Formats: sequence, C-alpha cells, structure tokens
Amino acid sequence: MAFVVLRQSMSTVQCVLVASADAGVSTQMVRFATALSKESIVDVEGVVSLPKEPLKATTQQVEIQVRKIYCINRAIPTLPINLEDAARSEADFEKAELAGEKLVRVGQDTRLNYRAIDLRTPSNQAIFRIQCQVENKFREFLLSKDFVGIHTPKLISGSSEGGAAVFKLLYNGQPACLAQSPQLHKQMALCGGFERVFEVGPVFRAENSNTHRHLCEFVGLDAEMEIKEHYFEVCDIIDGLFVSIFKHLTENCNKELETINRQYPFEPLKYLDKTLKLTYEEGVQMLKEAGTEIEPMGDLNTEAEKKLGRLVREKYDTDFFIMYRYPLAVRPFYTMPCYDNPAYSNSFDVFIRGEEIISGAQRIHTPELLTKRATECGIDVSTISTYIEVFSYGAPPHGGFGVGLERVVMLFCALNNIRKTSMFPRDPQRLVP
Amino acid sequence: MAFVVLRQSMSTVQCVLVASADAGVSTQMVRFATALSKESIVDVEGVVSLPKEPLKATTQQVEIQVRKIYCINRAIPTLPINLEDAARSEADFEKAELAGEKLVRVGQDTRLNYRAIDLRTPSNQAIFRIQCQVENKFREFLLSKDFVGIHTPKLISGSSEGGAAVFKLLYNGQPACLAQSPQLHKQMALCGGFERVFEVGPVFRAENSNTHRHLCEFVGLDAEMEIKEHYFEVCDIIDGLFVSIFKHLTENCNKELETINRQYPFEPLKYLDKTLKLTYEEGVQMLKEAGTEIEPMGDLNTEAEKKLGRLVREKYDTDFFIMYRYPLAVRPFYTMPCYDNPAYSNSFDVFIRGEEIISGAQRIHTPELLTKRATECGIDVSTISTYIEVFSYGAPPHGGFGVGLERVVMLFCALNNIRKTSMFPRDPQRLVP
Repeated sequence: MAFVVLRQSMSTVQCVLVASADAGVSTQMVRFATALSKESIVDVEGVVSLPKEPLKATTQQVEIQVRKIYCINRAIPTLPINLEDAARSEADFEKAELAGEKLVRVGQDTRLNYRAIDLRTPSNQAIFRIQCQVENKFREFLLSKDFVGIHTPKLISGSSEGGAAVFKLLYNGQPACLAQSPQLHKQMALCGGFERVFEVGPVFRAENSNTHRHLCEFVGLDAEMEIKEHYFEVCDIIDGLFVSIFKHLTENCNKELETINRQYPFEPLKYLDKTLKLTYEEGVQMLKEAGTEIEPMGDLNTEAEKKLGRLVREKYDTDFFIMYRYPLAVRPFYTMPCYDNPAYSNSFDVFIRGEEIISGAQRIHTPELLTKRATECGIDVSTISTYIEVFSYGAPPHGGFGVGLERVVMLFCALNNIRKTSMFPRDPQRLVP
Repeated sequence: MAFVVLRQSMSTVQCVLVASADAGVSTQMVRFATALSKESIVDVEGVVSLPKEPLKATTQQVEIQVRKIYCINRAIPTLPINLEDAARSEADFEKAELAGEKLVRVGQDTRLNYRAIDLRTPSNQAIFRIQCQVENKFREFLLSKDFVGIHTPKLISGSSEGGAAVFKLLYNGQPACLAQSPQLHKQMALCGGFERVFEVGPVFRAENSNTHRHLCEFVGLDAEMEIKEHYFEVCDIIDGLFVSIFKHLTENCNKELETINRQYPFEPLKYLDKTLKLTYEEGVQMLKEAGTEIEPMGDLNTEAEKKLGRLVREKYDTDFFIMYRYPLAVRPFYTMPCYDNPAYSNSFDVFIRGEEIISGAQRIHTPELLTKRATECGIDVSTISTYIEVFSYGAPPHGGFGVGLERVVMLFCALNNIRKTSMFPRDPQRLVP
C-alpha cells in the first residue's frame, strides 16, 4: 500500500474523488472538492490501490483513494475558454451534429488570446514536446558531425539581407534592425575558422504575409559548413539530419504523435532512407508533363510546389525531397553560380508534403565574384563593402541552409496552420500575449 | 604510406613546406607556396610520414611530405590584424620587453572590428567551443530532469518587465519592444501545463552600461519550474546543473581550457560537490565582520559582492555559492515574500568568483497577492492586467532563474571582459560587425 501526494488540476482528479466517495470518504470532503472550480490546483493525499473493477474511460491501472485534499490555488469558476471544448477533434463535432448536439468551437484567435489555458490541451502538450525533440535532434546530429553551436546578434546595423521586410529601430541613436537571418554572421564565423557551425535562434520578418505558413518571428535552425569538393556535401548533411529527426519522432514520440492524431488526424510522413534529389529542370519537366507550364528560368509558386509534391509522392513514394540547381536569377546575390552553366546555381530547396521548408546553397567565397554578382543584381556595392571585405581575409568554400522549426513540426504532423506550432505566435495582426 | 589532401590556411602549412623542400620538392613549388599570403586557403596533397627527427615547435607526431599545393582562395597580403599578434599572452609581451623587442598589441576594439580574423586565434577557437559545451550541458541536464525546451517571442507589446532599459520599435504600426527577459512567457508556459521549461535565447537590454560585464544583447539561459514544497527545489536544480557543467568542462574540455590558459592564464574555478548556500543576512554579517557595513534591507553593490566572494573563498574554499532570502524591497514585484517574514523574499542570487551570474526566485502565483505587491511597488495595475489574469486560470506555485551564457564562460575562465565571450558583442557603442 503506497501513500502519495499528487499535485493536479481539479479536473483531472474529479473522477477519482467520486470513486473514493463511494468507498466511504467523508461527504464533507466531497462537498468541498466538488465546489472547487475545475482548473484549480490541488494537492491530493491518498492511497494507491488496485481498483475492484477496471477503471472506465481511462488507461490507468491503479486508482487513488483520497484521504485529504488541499486547494493550493483557486481558479475562477468560469474560464474564458473551456478545456474540453479546446480539445475536440473534427470527428467529435461531426458526431455531435449527427446526434443533434451543438458543441462550442474555440476559434484560433480565442485560443491564442488565452494561450495559458489553450496550451493545456493534450495535443498542445504533445506539439511543443515534439518541437523540443526536433530541436534536440537537430543539435545532437550536427554536434555529432563536428558542428559548433554559435549565437549571432539579432540587433544589426543597416538591413540584414537587404529588402524591405525588416523591423527597424533606434540603437542608442543609431539606425538598426532585427536580423532577418543569421546569414552574414554565420558566414563570418566560417571565415573565423569554425569549419562547421549551427545556430538556433529567432528570425524576424516584417512581411505583411497573412498565410497559414508565415510568421513575423520564428525559430530559425541554421547551419553553415566548409565545402571540400561539392555542395552536395551540404545536401548530405540535410539528408542525414532530417531522416534522423523523422526516425527519432516515429520511434520515440509515439505517444505524442498519437495524441496529436486524435485531435488533428494526419497521415504519417513518407520519407526514404536516402533522400530523393531532383534537379530543378526535372521538377519543371514533371510539372510540364502533368500540364503545368513553368517559366524555365523563373521560380515555382506555392501552387506549383504543392502539385510537384503530389507528383513526387506518386512517382517516388516520398513526402520529403530535395530539389537542386535552381536558376541563378531566383536566388540571392551571394549564391554560387554553377561552374558548368552560370545560368544555374549551386542551390537547393527542400520540401515536405509539397511545401518548401529549407533553402540552402553554396555561397560565393571570393570578393571579386561577390562584387560582380552584387552589381549584376543592382545592389550598391558600397553598402555591403564590410561583408565583401571579409572574404579577402582568407575564406574557405562554404555553404549552408536554414529552416524554420515551426514549419518542420507543422509539416511533419500535417497541421494546417503554423500558429499551432508556435507557442506565442507573432503575425502581422498579433503581438500578444 | 598514406596519401592525404588537407584544406588549411597557408600559415599552418608553411613549416611543413620548408621541411619538404629539404626533402627534394621542386623549388618552383616552394617559390609558388612561399609567395602565397599567410591566410590564403590551400589544398595540400602529400604523403603522411614519420619525421626522421622529432618535429620542433609542435605537438604533431607525423609530417606531410607535400607533393602538390593548390590555392583555393587567396587572402590579401596584409591583413588589418596579424594573427600572431592577436594570439599573444601578457607573458609574451613581458618577455619581449625584457629582450628589448617591441611587439604589436591588438586592442579589443580592433579585434572586434575584424572579428572574422580575430576568431581564428587558438584561444577564441577554444572560448566558443567551451561556450557551446556550456549550452549543451545546460540543455542536457535540464532535459534529464524533465524540463521541456521552449521558445518565447522576443517581439512583445509594451515593455517586458517595465523600466526604461528597453529597445522600442514599431510593429506594423503598433508600439512594441524587445523582450528584456522571457520571464512573463515562461510563467505563461508554466500556467499552460508545462511543469518545467527552459529557454535559450537572446535577451535585450538598452542600458547604457559601459562595464566589463554588461552587453545590450546576450544569450539568456532561463528555466522555470513548478515548486512542490519549497523554493529550495529551484536552488537544488541550479546546484546539480552548474556542478555538472563545471565537472564536464574540467573533465572533457581540457584541451580548450589549456589553450585559453596559455593566452589568458587563470586559476581553475573552485566549487563544492554540494553548493554552499548562505542567507543574505549571513552574507551581510560576514561583510560587517570584515569591516564593510551594508544597509541590512538594501542590496549589495558590485564592490561588496567582490569582497564577499573573497571572504567566502577564504572561509569555505569555493568560488561558487548561492545567497538566498534577499530583502523583498530589492527584488521585482512578482517575487514571493517569505511566509515567516514578508520583509524578506523567496529569492536568491548565485555568484561565481565574486560576481553575480544567476538571479532567481519563487514567483507570486495568486492574482490577489500579485495585485497587492504591484500596487505597493507603485506599478499601475491596469497596465499589467493581462499578466495578472493568467494566474486566475489555475496556476501552480512556481519559480525559476535566469543566467547569461557569456557570463558563465567569462567567469569560469576568469576572463576580464564579457566581449571576449560574445562572438559579435553588442554594447552601447558597438552594433557591428
């Protein structure tokens, strides 16, 4: 017979209490307990015992016969959202509708406004544990491949990669902005003698993108590495890294994935042990054969990417693939052109379920070519002279990639909105809580 | 006989080249190689062999007889700073002075201006590898204690903990600021059902502090956890966490520590297996007995902290200790008062080598007490009503702490300036590179 003290919210111990009441617990205690609001925090003292009959509606094997109950912190009786409502699946709503019942739906905005309650749903508890595992595995894999974890500044002078989508502020009277990516600084670390580096940190985009997949602040998983012979070395790291993340989630996070699946049903991600690599030209050709014409030197739009994802899935049975050798014109100025045809570039995107999640490339490592490409792209070279100078101090060939943590989790679990995988999301309309 | 291809900077292969020249390598190649600037990146093809005589001035056991050398990327001949100069210790300067030589000193600002070169010194390579290890161990230890890694937003509305030292900006037209700590959001995660959380991420302070230990942006290591019975549970986590970090560094990072020691000699950190805990009153008493009078309900200044560090070291033979039960008046409004005497608080600071590195406490978890304390501290309660409301939805007793990654590394290695442990530091004067 084991005596235990458990801290719980009231809602999780209510059924146990009733059972104990049957077993002869004082009616005074039951009255006290049932008067407590559901989300109050209580300490329950009791005896662990095997139930006479198997417990219904639970997977627990034991019950606790309550002896004492203390209220540690009372919750208000009526919460702005009801946890049961927030935890329902579409199937629950359909079932209720068939039965003529009307259930309360908790909208995305209401959830986010009361995130401290919404986070308590089983699926949210699972989603953010999965997110933590993705980050752990990202770090663990790269550390095992001799990458060094670094931190680069988020406050920078000027604009990080040019462009308008940048948050501006004043830094002690100087114009400054928030980094749109750690790109320049991770390249500087590379030139500083760190052969392989990675960073996990916030990335800021002042874009007015109101989509299911854009945030104004997200967690970037970035890596940069020396290239010895070919930029496929970077693709190989991505291949090994993501296959190991997917395997880890599938093998070790079953409970969490099942929990998410109950509220938001999804098909498991299909991936190959050795990740499929297609050229951009092959991708365009596949789309063409399926009736979608793409400007051969242009970029794919979201719709074409979705369609390509379906075609690749049909042909190769995978939801995860790398597309490489993009037209140079659609990549940033610092992207290395292909040596055999400078209309193309040593670059790639990676897709999960038809959505781009990773962008990467070999970077130009000589000041001459960098100056030439910047000029061709219409960039005023004088504004990036300190960046270009770095490559005149001795710079190894290198490349890297960046990926958003929230997107990885969203697409692995086939969730329909990136706000579900950001604990406190920031979009053009939302700056709270 | 092994054939190898090595990518190196020219400076690291020069001595090998000379040796190979003696062994009959073409003078044409030697001429080509010696004309290359020092920091140029080269590929060296050669044969690994045992030297006839032990190699001087190196710990290597083998040499490479160079067959071919390719220049991958040329560096400019005269760099803004010379790596040899940047790598010298004080002892080197003293020795040179005695010999009547004048060596070039590279100042802190020059180093930081050309950080991509400066990072190549052996001690900088070691410092940032140590930093990575501290973060790894921080995560590993907390994950093993069932903490979940989370990410909270850095863009927030209003000011994060009040006060003036905040970077302000416009977020899509709304007034916003950069988070001065993840305090409120990690508490929200706690109330959201995550029993133990941690975060590694940037922290922004717009303070005009030009000291050896302040930065405007640093990497915060933060944790927050449910408290079951007493806030010492938080201190116990810190004890276990930091002792395991120190042990790991001492046992596994010997090479890096020795490298740092060569340029910046330091005494190894003294710490106990079970971390010493003193009350604030005991600390004040120790200072008083040593002739320093402290206002008993005030705070310690930097000088008093230094002195206390020396006294504790003399008496207890440790550079690392926890001081707890601070006067309530010197802690933030959300700090839990002591139950037995509300003039004190359930709070603590942690010191390394006489400098505060960690601040932590139990937080108030009821809206009533939080409202009362905010009012007593002169805070307009209406401005923090959403924060207070969170605790009315069901909130467990909890506490936590925060520590700066750069400070841990600086103080473990007894470095004299926090700019040495930030890869690209941000202070009131510095926003580049």
